[in-house]
Amino acid sequence: MEPDAKQRLAIVLIESRNPLNIGAAARAMSNFGFFDLRLVRPYSVAFEEAVSAVGAAELLKSARVFEDVSAAVADCSLVVGATGVGHRVFEHPLHRLERAGRLLRRHVQTARAAILFGSEKFGLSNADISHCHWLLHIPTRAEHDSMNLGQAVAVTLYELSRSPAAARRLPQAAGLATEEELERLGGLWEQALAQSGYCDFGKEKSARDKLRRLLRRLSVSSRDAAILAGMLRQILWKLDSGGR
Amino acid sequence: MEPDAKQRLAIVLIESRNPLNIGAAARAMSNFGFFDLRLVRPYSVAFEEAVSAVGAAELLKSARVFEDVSAAVADCSLVVGATGVGHRVFEHPLHRLERAGRLLRRHVQTARAAILFGSEKFGLSNADISHCHWLLHIPTRAEHDSMNLGQAVAVTLYELSRSPAAARRLPQAAGLATEEELERLGGLWEQALAQSGYCDFGKEKSARDKLRRLLRRLSVSSRDAAILAGMLRQILWKLDSGGR
Repeated sequence: MEPDAKQRLAIVLIESRNPLNIGAAARAMSNFGFFDLRLVRPYSVAFEEAVSAVGAAELLKSARVFEDVSAAVADCSLVVGATGVGHRVFEHPLHRLERAGRLLRRHVQTARAAILFGSEKFGLSNADISHCHWLLHIPTRAEHDSMNLGQAVAVTLYELSRSPAAARRLPQAAGLATEEELERLGGLWEQALAQSGYCDFGKEKSARDKLRRLLRRLSVSSRDAAILAGMLRQILWKLDSGGR
Repeated sequence: MEPDAKQRLAIVLIESRNPLNIGAAARAMSNFGFFDLRLVRPYSVAFEEAVSAVGAAELLKSARVFEDVSAAVADCSLVVGATGVGHRVFEHPLHRLERAGRLLRRHVQTARAAILFGSEKFGLSNADISHCHWLLHIPTRAEHDSMNLGQAVAVTLYELSRSPAAARRLPQAAGLATEEELERLGGLWEQALAQSGYCDFGKEKSARDKLRRLLRRLSVSSRDAAILAGMLRQILWKLDSGGR
């Protein structure tokens, strides 16, 4: 998700009571690069404590406070309510977060959206939900009908930020040892094994192939190949000097 | 992810200091259906406070405590370290969570794995990391090198639990109004508009098509079609009675 698009998404916390939760939500937003935090009727003590907390994200200081949901989402053309699975409001489409993320990402390409999170104790009220175009739920076990507020915000913003392409990306193969390095390492292993009497590479025809395959299975990096070679040279030196 | 596979994943918290964080990690595990929590050298006060906290997940009580990382992951054939982006250990492959999730899901189909989370203050030590086959990082902004522990566990377990299929799933279309219901509703609108002088459907040929298209764009549910029809009947009754 582009930074521009992220700026079009507002996170709206309604009647949050716990300064730790407000702080945790702000920290998650900052982690994932979302900066538009709006609070509807926060308990003023909670809000002030959250703002003054050590390590509070800068964005908490720029958070805007509203008297009601209408005012908080006035500039948004999509309003989504985050709700526990247990909270069924059949009038509204209920999307799992995976799909909600896709719909939200598409919307904020060109227009503003808001996600509403209810209070820790009561969740979203029916009045709050009446402002929503649809609802999202995080796919937790049915036994639980709510998540910790800070965690729910973090998981939601992670879904919006995640990159399907990254799931297919291979780790950089740049560091892997070349065949030349592996052959050199194999030669040292062979000497050490021969000298220590592990096996006779002249007689056991397949021994060299087995060793070669073993080294390829380990996916050794260039750097580790050099370290292993150094270890083997030292062992060989000791073996040559008769183990004294 | 199948419940069986989830049972093969252990979450290992190393030297956690804050009972709130241990509790939050346990709650996230319970939310997403993971139950194997292992603690390495937790500050004992923190652990006891977390266990006795109101609302502590049952699984905290069954958490196992270990003296060192070796013992905690002895039965696992894959050990993954969760680390901030800032923490670069070039000897280890570093996978973004999206890809790490794919690799972990595959592994726990048949074998045990563990994810290590370091202390809030110091993260994973080099000694902790030496037990890991590879590292994962949650894709946060580069300015932040760590997430709140409870949130990091929640986001990681969400990635493992998420269903790509769910992103493509359409909301249930079962509730949508049938064409018959929409036509009936359209007829009532037409009467109300004609009687109130909004337009003359006899003269304006395209008016009926426009109204029909409008009603389809609204994706009205059967239930809402009935509610709207009731409203319109009441309006028509008032219009018929001369607005008195």
